[in-house]
Amino acid sequence: MEGTIRCDANYVPLSPISFLERSAVVYRDRLSVVYGDHVKFTWKQTRDRCVRLASALVSSFRIHRNDVRYVFITWGGPRGSQVAVLAPNIPEMYELHFAVPMAGALLCSLNIRHDSAMVSTLLKHSGAKLIFVDYQFLDVAQGALEIISKSMPTVPHLVLIPDSEKLAPRPKSEIMEYDALLVMGNLDFEIRRPKDEFDPIALNYTSGTTSSPKGVVYSHRGAYLNSLSVVLLNEMSSMSVYLWTLPMFHCNGWCLTWAVAAQGGTNVCLRAVNAKDIFECISRHKVTHMSGAPTVLNMIINAPASEKLPLPGKQVCVLTGGAPPPSQVVFSMEQMGFEVYHVYGLTETYGPATVCTWKPEWNSLPPDTRAKIKSRQGVNHLGLEEVDIKDPVTMKSIPWDAKTIGEVMVRGNTVMNGYLKDTKATQEAFQGGWFRSGDLGVRHSDGYIELKDRSKDIIISGGENISTIEVESVLFRHPAVLEAAVVGRPDAHWGETACAFVKVKEGYKLTADELIAFCRKNLPHYMAPRTVVFEELPKTSTGKTQKFVLREKVKAMGRLSSKGKSKL
Amino acid sequence: MEGTIRCDANYVPLSPISFLERSAVVYRDRLSVVYGDHVKFTWKQTRDRCVRLASALVSSFRIHRNDVRYVFITWGGPRGSQVAVLAPNIPEMYELHFAVPMAGALLCSLNIRHDSAMVSTLLKHSGAKLIFVDYQFLDVAQGALEIISKSMPTVPHLVLIPDSEKLAPRPKSEIMEYDALLVMGNLDFEIRRPKDEFDPIALNYTSGTTSSPKGVVYSHRGAYLNSLSVVLLNEMSSMSVYLWTLPMFHCNGWCLTWAVAAQGGTNVCLRAVNAKDIFECISRHKVTHMSGAPTVLNMIINAPASEKLPLPGKQVCVLTGGAPPPSQVVFSMEQMGFEVYHVYGLTETYGPATVCTWKPEWNSLPPDTRAKIKSRQGVNHLGLEEVDIKDPVTMKSIPWDAKTIGEVMVRGNTVMNGYLKDTKATQEAFQGGWFRSGDLGVRHSDGYIELKDRSKDIIISGGENISTIEVESVLFRHPAVLEAAVVGRPDAHWGETACAFVKVKEGYKLTADELIAFCRKNLPHYMAPRTVVFEELPKTSTGKTQKFVLREKVKAMGRLSSKGKSKL
Repeated sequence: MEGTIRCDANYVPLSPISFLERSAVVYRDRLSVVYGDHVKFTWKQTRDRCVRLASALVSSFRIHRNDVRYVFITWGGPRGSQVAVLAPNIPEMYELHFAVPMAGALLCSLNIRHDSAMVSTLLKHSGAKLIFVDYQFLDVAQGALEIISKSMPTVPHLVLIPDSEKLAPRPKSEIMEYDALLVMGNLDFEIRRPKDEFDPIALNYTSGTTSSPKGVVYSHRGAYLNSLSVVLLNEMSSMSVYLWTLPMFHCNGWCLTWAVAAQGGTNVCLRAVNAKDIFECISRHKVTHMSGAPTVLNMIINAPASEKLPLPGKQVCVLTGGAPPPSQVVFSMEQMGFEVYHVYGLTETYGPATVCTWKPEWNSLPPDTRAKIKSRQGVNHLGLEEVDIKDPVTMKSIPWDAKTIGEVMVRGNTVMNGYLKDTKATQEAFQGGWFRSGDLGVRHSDGYIELKDRSKDIIISGGENISTIEVESVLFRHPAVLEAAVVGRPDAHWGETACAFVKVKEGYKLTADELIAFCRKNLPHYMAPRTVVFEELPKTSTGKTQKFVLREKVKAMGRLSSKGKSKL
Repeated sequence: MEGTIRCDANYVPLSPISFLERSAVVYRDRLSVVYGDHVKFTWKQTRDRCVRLASALVSSFRIHRNDVRYVFITWGGPRGSQVAVLAPNIPEMYELHFAVPMAGALLCSLNIRHDSAMVSTLLKHSGAKLIFVDYQFLDVAQGALEIISKSMPTVPHLVLIPDSEKLAPRPKSEIMEYDALLVMGNLDFEIRRPKDEFDPIALNYTSGTTSSPKGVVYSHRGAYLNSLSVVLLNEMSSMSVYLWTLPMFHCNGWCLTWAVAAQGGTNVCLRAVNAKDIFECISRHKVTHMSGAPTVLNMIINAPASEKLPLPGKQVCVLTGGAPPPSQVVFSMEQMGFEVYHVYGLTETYGPATVCTWKPEWNSLPPDTRAKIKSRQGVNHLGLEEVDIKDPVTMKSIPWDAKTIGEVMVRGNTVMNGYLKDTKATQEAFQGGWFRSGDLGVRHSDGYIELKDRSKDIIISGGENISTIEVESVLFRHPAVLEAAVVGRPDAHWGETACAFVKVKEGYKLTADELIAFCRKNLPHYMAPRTVVFEELPKTSTGKTQKFVLREKVKAMGRLSSKGKSKL
């Protein structure tokens, strides 16, 4: 258009780096990060530390330390290189979310539950030349490097993050330490902003509930927009205090790492997630927001009375996702004074993609109905262009009848760039111009979606689809059930029948027959489990039950012979 | 990066059109627009009406109406064409903010205070082929078309927006009417989304406080990002009720037209801005947010007691900008229960660019100090990359000492694409990679900026700079002063001295000497006005005082002979 120009004055690639730059001025003296009894930073300090670290990362120099044996060659990485990290929710982990992108690199956050073998596999796949490791996970990381050294000429450099809660001087270490690297950085460093906002900012491996982990690439643009979307759906103001109960390594903490910086809130770091520390942090720091899988909510609900502290004046908003929260869990949380926001998404959508946006007219419904509605996955958030449920073959939208099942598909700027080094998988995931989630669901007449199952989880019994989520939600309504997961068990007559894995609450007793009877009272008979196993459930580090592990167990049990049991 | 792809699944050009599409599902049955006693729409209805209108706009057909004389050829416009509108804050004006972009066109909102001559000039400059006109402004528009017809072979088509508050059937008109056009549209119409998010969405003429109007081009990307920024700085939740006291034709209502759709709030339309209607609407619709120039705030403060109604339970947030709010105005508004957010920006920055973000530690300051701080322009909002005060020649940042004066400059995605058909002006405005605002200001030690004057407004008296804003803020503190504006008067000895134009409150009496004495008590003597003129102040339609008109008046007064008055 005549007279218009695109230039530095009116075009800046979108990036979460801008959030930190701005908060260092606007909220300069406000607390950015607090941790334990000793660690406290302001936004100005956090910004300066990140700039220094970024500067140190791109410099290339040899460091002789302690005069003797230690030689560290920093990474000196070119743009677009990968920097890995293996750490819990500590301040350094937070800083890396800005420092690494400021160095023009990608942050590859690894799951702290992985063993050395898995870490070595992911390090090799990612191509990371440098890994930051929290002291608790040093053995795992060193084990991984040893595995790599057997097949590769060079191994990634390691930077140790020591225990910042310990104030006593530490013994001299041969390993490069985080703060020693940081202080070598220069505050005048010119931040390496992305040249194109579609440039990658992070690499996150899928949690592998259904298959081997894939490397999901996030862009600066997607991270920026998903962060703002999370701020909006969560109603986080600039006075928010965010408690880190969700792992930062999981989808970069659903982008809340960057989102808290956007609003200049305060990050309350937490090394280990347990009910006692959660309640203490909420009370001490006047927490306003937190997130977590339904298992974290369960932990809060079932905390011993001695650990439960009253919430500070205002309500605490809890984002939950990763698995549909059983309505009983929502209900119990709200009774305790938490406000539960239910979001749904995948690693491929930067975490939250949809939210069960609440309608005021639902306030007058009975509590149980309210909780049921809240466990729906809802509608796309502001940054995602569209969510739909489609027939995966014809790509036609299914009717909004709450019955017809189709595949949940999304499209928009908060969908990943693709799977690293796996063009074929990327193309398959994006076939037809939509990201195919692999989740099955229905759409209610008001447009809200509700998940019925992962396409790999659904049970087909005598030709009928059984939603394992529906069966689980009934199991959760039984007062003695703490955790439950349902998978299909091969059945000679029905093809498959439901098999429930259940963890019973402390102090309760429950038999398989009692639980089956309870299910038959509350479900169509064909949906009720035929088998019940009482045991601890295997989980991913983000609290999702690993159904593939349960399916292996069920296969090992062998086929159920239920022929002739026609009353099913 | 290997394995990544940019495609429809993960890339959608940013556009406010997405806000409406989403709200039509998420907030489908919630009120989108209310107006007077009879007009009410839901978000689903608003979306459908906009789609129909967009469809009608791009169709090209002849309409014979009333069987006889009337022939209307719709615009059938190609992408990127301009559609003008001359209307107050009515529902149709709101709908055009989506319908026109959905047709792939630009909305050119004209100032309703313009006369036929100015409207004809802007219509010709814009190249609009179609103009929507509210019935109140039909004469002005027809006069403009008549002027155009004298020099051009074709004139823009005119669509009349009749009075929707009148329910009685109207006489048959020879002019195409809004709803008649709308119903010809097709709901299956495929919305023309921008191909590139940098494509223009709107054209807004500057209000011309300092020079002849320029056509400022907004992009879909900038509108999207400024809308989200306004939502965030204003803390607008999805339950917001927004009262339209700010003209929508002014920077598209500071992007709040689109912002309210983003959050699915309710727009309360208002044809005429007066204290009685404002209080009635606030009370009746439980308004939560509104905006306006300080003159609107003055109108509220000085309303007769009979018109003042108590505010509904919650605080009402008021965004004010366009001119720095005198601290007395901020103070009085807060005493009435309003929460004032002070924003600063220009037509070239889509309206708000900075905001005086409040710090909790300021709450304990004395009211007057608080109000003074609040009248600072503050810090860049989340969507603007950077604000700075620079030496316009060296482009160096001035020190943060609250004293050194420099030019306010901004850069980021919420800066205009440029001036339509004026590449030279665009290049000058963007010289050095920053948008040069033409405003002068200082920067406080905390990074907050404070305007001192427009570069054309500042008075240079005996070599000293006099900020007219500072003088005006003292004038406003006098209890008898309703409005005040200061300009430089040529002075034989000092070069220039301050001349105050003042409107006195009803029921008060005030002499020039009294006011000058008051100023000398509260200001350095050289800054106090030497001349005071009591009269009505000339204003732009957005409530800004037209200082160039006052400067003309002062010139006509002639040079002040103050030689020898050394006590100044």
